[in-house]
Amino acid sequence: MNASNHVRIVEVGARDGLQNEKTLLPAAVKIALIDRLSSTGLQTIEATSFVSPAWVPQLADAAEVYAGIRKLPGVSYPVLVPNLQGYQRAREVGATHIAVFTAASEAFNRRNINASIDESIERFIPVMEQARADDVKVRGYVSTVLGCPYQGEVPVVDVVRVARRMHELGCHQISLGDTIGVGTPTRARAMLRAVAQEVPIAALAVHFHDTYGQALANILACLEEGVRVIDSAVSGTGGCPYAKGATGNVASEDVVYMLHGMGMQTGIDLDLLVATGAWLAAQLHKDTASRVTRARTAAG
Amino acid sequence: MNASNHVRIVEVGARDGLQNEKTLLPAAVKIALIDRLSSTGLQTIEATSFVSPAWVPQLADAAEVYAGIRKLPGVSYPVLVPNLQGYQRAREVGATHIAVFTAASEAFNRRNINASIDESIERFIPVMEQARADDVKVRGYVSTVLGCPYQGEVPVVDVVRVARRMHELGCHQISLGDTIGVGTPTRARAMLRAVAQEVPIAALAVHFHDTYGQALANILACLEEGVRVIDSAVSGTGGCPYAKGATGNVASEDVVYMLHGMGMQTGIDLDLLVATGAWLAAQLHKDTASRVTRARTAAG
Repeated sequence: MNASNHVRIVEVGARDGLQNEKTLLPAAVKIALIDRLSSTGLQTIEATSFVSPAWVPQLADAAEVYAGIRKLPGVSYPVLVPNLQGYQRAREVGATHIAVFTAASEAFNRRNINASIDESIERFIPVMEQARADDVKVRGYVSTVLGCPYQGEVPVVDVVRVARRMHELGCHQISLGDTIGVGTPTRARAMLRAVAQEVPIAALAVHFHDTYGQALANILACLEEGVRVIDSAVSGTGGCPYAKGATGNVASEDVVYMLHGMGMQTGIDLDLLVATGAWLAAQLHKDTASRVTRARTAAG
Repeated sequence: MNASNHVRIVEVGARDGLQNEKTLLPAAVKIALIDRLSSTGLQTIEATSFVSPAWVPQLADAAEVYAGIRKLPGVSYPVLVPNLQGYQRAREVGATHIAVFTAASEAFNRRNINASIDESIERFIPVMEQARADDVKVRGYVSTVLGCPYQGEVPVVDVVRVARRMHELGCHQISLGDTIGVGTPTRARAMLRAVAQEVPIAALAVHFHDTYGQALANILACLEEGVRVIDSAVSGTGGCPYAKGATGNVASEDVVYMLHGMGMQTGIDLDLLVATGAWLAAQLHKDTASRVTRARTAAG
């Protein structure tokens, strides 16, 4: 379905990963993290989130971090924005790529942002309009695509509807996220296939959490369906707010190891990525969740 | 290629898992482990190994463990035997299913048992003959099928040759093991496909270690190729003697979670398996390597 051998990794560790880490890192460490990531060959590095500091204390230094990172040519550094206010803060420090988010689960939206799915989409329409006027590229996240901590099953039709709407509103890429990591390959594949009937597969990304260890298998199934953009977080940072102590984002190192082993190209230097993952784990005072990094840094 | 929805899990935690664990467990704990595993619905539980106690101190109590376990009807409890002496010790306590092993890598055989591949196979011919006479079923392990810690790459033709020879000698099932966990889905699939041209797929099993986090993705690729027997170890016990600190066998809980999520049947009660994995991790004073068990036992 897709003969391309090139896969783009969207590195989300500095945002989605860190926002679920308890150890607060100084801005200088986050800047060092992103600069290290830039040197690995990654082409897309989500840098931070301009949400309310009260909401995500770890990312209260968004403006300082974004302003401080080295922006390499050819690399994009999207930042998450929840609303027009966040958008304006991001623009003040020069952000050219943003991301907006909603969930495919009604219950999740209601619990998280006290809005229906449709209301949550309405809320970022002003952001989309301003972004279009400013020539800012917008990525859209759809979370809970394979399950919801509140409502359980999430109908595929809801995922399709939300993804299509975000695409219509101008998101250049829609990232389909299994927020609680409950999905398995057959369902991941079926969900992606259904969405790809309404949104071009080239505009889709997949975003798996490894809560139940299924992330790489799900990614494999989605690669077979033709997806070529994968979200992951160096060192598998993060966690799951709905299952404390559980594993977080799939580790970028493990994804890249698989892709390179399958003969696919990412442009990423795996050795540098492993070194960055080991360094980040040390900063967070925790063991890395990347099995590749664990194996590579283990005593032989 | 294989429309069957039933997958047989060969639980290897009590042997392959424990033999790489440093914490020595008393025989009573091993017996309790196997009895718990029996209650989960597993149909094949590798019980222990009758190798030299000097070689594997953890399994020096093989006879006591085998004699002590509750043998449920319909469940087989194979034991590993390295030679005729081990076979006789196993038979003295009533073993009816055994397993023999070799590697697809010349260098691995030379370093591990000071023999060529062909010599290692010659060595278990007397075991095979005696087993046939005694109506004992023999499983064959081929290790290093996707890489070797000493020689690096292992040619697929060597894997095919060894697997075919073991099948010709009377092994009812050949387990293809990625001992150092370096394989990725494309290569795992190609290796399995090549072997399946010489040995019926119904006589093949796959055995992945999660050293580089690739095990579930590799299993998915092999399921797509038609394999329906999968080796795994509850709680992901074990490790990798060639990369200390690295992850061991793929966790049975994570495999079963994936299979059930894909609509496949194993006959296993996942809740009981998770409880057994959590219990075993406590016995070993370590965190479980199963992400499913971690998520299920995490605070919500």
